[in-house]
Amino acid sequence: MDTIVIKFGGSSLSTTDKIKNAADRIIQIRKQGNNVIAVVSAMGKTTDQLLSLAEQITDKPAQREMDMLLTTGEQVSISLLTMALTSKGMEAISLTGWQAGIVTENIHSNARILDVKTAMLRKRLDEGKVVVAAGFQGVTEEGEITTLGRGGSDTTAVAIAAALDAKRCLICTDVTGVYTSDPRFVPTARKLSSISYDEMLELANLGAGVLHPRAVEFAKNYGVALEVRSSIENEEGTVIEEEVSMEQNLIVRGVAFEKGMTRLTILGLNNELNGLSSIFTVLADHQIDVDIIIQSQTDTNKTNLSFSIKTKDLDNVIEVLEQHRQEIGYEGLEHEAELAKVSIVGSGMVSNPGVAARMFQILAKKQIQVKMVSTSEIKISVVVNEDQMELAAQTLHEEYDLGAVPAEATN
Amino acid sequence: MDTIVIKFGGSSLSTTDKIKNAADRIIQIRKQGNNVIAVVSAMGKTTDQLLSLAEQITDKPAQREMDMLLTTGEQVSISLLTMALTSKGMEAISLTGWQAGIVTENIHSNARILDVKTAMLRKRLDEGKVVVAAGFQGVTEEGEITTLGRGGSDTTAVAIAAALDAKRCLICTDVTGVYTSDPRFVPTARKLSSISYDEMLELANLGAGVLHPRAVEFAKNYGVALEVRSSIENEEGTVIEEEVSMEQNLIVRGVAFEKGMTRLTILGLNNELNGLSSIFTVLADHQIDVDIIIQSQTDTNKTNLSFSIKTKDLDNVIEVLEQHRQEIGYEGLEHEAELAKVSIVGSGMVSNPGVAARMFQILAKKQIQVKMVSTSEIKISVVVNEDQMELAAQTLHEEYDLGAVPAEATN
Repeated sequence: MDTIVIKFGGSSLSTTDKIKNAADRIIQIRKQGNNVIAVVSAMGKTTDQLLSLAEQITDKPAQREMDMLLTTGEQVSISLLTMALTSKGMEAISLTGWQAGIVTENIHSNARILDVKTAMLRKRLDEGKVVVAAGFQGVTEEGEITTLGRGGSDTTAVAIAAALDAKRCLICTDVTGVYTSDPRFVPTARKLSSISYDEMLELANLGAGVLHPRAVEFAKNYGVALEVRSSIENEEGTVIEEEVSMEQNLIVRGVAFEKGMTRLTILGLNNELNGLSSIFTVLADHQIDVDIIIQSQTDTNKTNLSFSIKTKDLDNVIEVLEQHRQEIGYEGLEHEAELAKVSIVGSGMVSNPGVAARMFQILAKKQIQVKMVSTSEIKISVVVNEDQMELAAQTLHEEYDLGAVPAEATN
Repeated sequence: MDTIVIKFGGSSLSTTDKIKNAADRIIQIRKQGNNVIAVVSAMGKTTDQLLSLAEQITDKPAQREMDMLLTTGEQVSISLLTMALTSKGMEAISLTGWQAGIVTENIHSNARILDVKTAMLRKRLDEGKVVVAAGFQGVTEEGEITTLGRGGSDTTAVAIAAALDAKRCLICTDVTGVYTSDPRFVPTARKLSSISYDEMLELANLGAGVLHPRAVEFAKNYGVALEVRSSIENEEGTVIEEEVSMEQNLIVRGVAFEKGMTRLTILGLNNELNGLSSIFTVLADHQIDVDIIIQSQTDTNKTNLSFSIKTKDLDNVIEVLEQHRQEIGYEGLEHEAELAKVSIVGSGMVSNPGVAARMFQILAKKQIQVKMVSTSEIKISVVVNEDQMELAAQTLHEEYDLGAVPAEATN
């Protein structure tokens, strides 16, 4: 009997009616003759409500206690979904993170999974039950409750799928799959029938938002076949796996973009000090994500350093840098907000030189100024003005002919 | 260093402001040089909200899943109260039922505590922390989450106090202590400075409502000194302990009463069948509490049986009895609603004959008809018309001079 892991996010469980729908989806898969483990997040707004309670108490809650608080969210979901399954005649049982054997490192709010002790999961599957397990949460060897941070439920689902050697891990979400670009902005965007882990990783990191990069990485490392699909409509989604499909020969597979970026420039950074490492250590200590980094040396002693951050982090970044000005050693700060990042992703790039050059030509033809560039083996990102983001994305999507259905995927 | 267990119920934690108040109370006791373990219930309306979610899913949830759902309530409370303590500079740590080592039998919704594994509690106390433990919940040896049923948080507090040999277990509640009667109906009702376990047990069973009888029984068995006191006002409460205080020589210590009773009479019960045992077995199977039972034989073959139930259970009781009419063997059913139970309690009764006679005289003088009677070693209960309940309670309170402060308790 094959084992299928199926994950439902908070928006797919935001009401009791949606929970009943999720139960129907699970029953369908179970009745196809599979063992099923459902992994669930907290219901819709639950996390926000819990956060609001904590804020009323203190603005500096201990992370351990936040974990204690937030993990109640998934516990509510697992019990309700299990009740829904049972009321529809399907035998089911709920398990919290610690009951499901999700062992993590001893770090609060952002722990990594160390092990999945599968004894309890297997026992319940062997009893013929659907198992409903809490995502996002785990337990340390010492019995402390932890959470996995952003994308935690995706990661739980993948970890359980890996540990049980599941046939597939379904990630049910608001969208019907992974698209060549965001259909809200690029009308010709098309759902991909399959994509490689690395391509998905780049897309996930670039704000495509359907699947957390950490979960993709985990799936890649353990060879778990993922499928992103709709939690409501019963149609094929996008499969993420290592196998090369014909489609994968395309150089560019998708166009991703993200608003709300700011470029911050640190002027007159002293080369002799450990300026660079100081800056990024300080920012990391304050949980600030830095994206594209560009260094340009102006003379032998001084250098200018630019990097992109989320605009919402700007005040915080400036405050943190100014507090450490002595230690870092710099002359001034400049910033430019209202920027956006636009990226093309495709594993075919690695063997196709000149992709970047063509991208710049396409953008230049539309008078789109490129302010920063970053490249990886399978991705090229540019930073442009926010008001040109959609034009850039649409133009690239069109130029690379991503809206056309490949011959292999038509049937 | 002495250890104090302090329990806060849901109404003492219904808002984040009340949680902060509870934190202040705990800090006060800690600063007096005690180890402190706080045991908490779910916040005010949380349980109702969770029940409502379950009702939207199914009208027959599995008890295991209800336990899974409801135990999130205390988990929210422990984390918020711990945050409140920490934000006020007091080192604290929260523990769920399973983390606190509350081991129960393998029964859902109404499990009994089998053991308190104190290793984790002691470790955290040794670290100098206030421990905030979840009441009402436990875990089986197999790792299943259970709840303790009504009065569960009181029972958790007492069990922890017993296991840690605590100096005292404070039960913080809406009222400032145990009264000679309900002050809302008997204006001269007075707070008792102390009361014995048995007296408290009778009062608790009679609807005094401040402390669950199960917790009192547990405290009695393990010699835990309980104190009922206000969660808001910082005044002495009522101590419940075995030691005989001077006050205890009073024959009657309190007057309890309860509305909403119905007397049900089963007519023409066949003596030859196992009618009696059938009736109460059937009612117990349907979770119906029966209180006073009176049997009166009318001829050699037939008997009439009366018992008091809560009026809200009446329809259910009649339905259940009618379903089993053949098996029980009876001719008909009669009932009288709008009755109330009024009781006098005092451990002095046991050595004072004539207490019942005097009680009946007092009631007769006020034209109060007694419809049923039940006695124990330290309690006499009568059933009267509901509209005479207050008069009966006030008259008895006055006649036994319960409003007068005993000489020993004035300072």
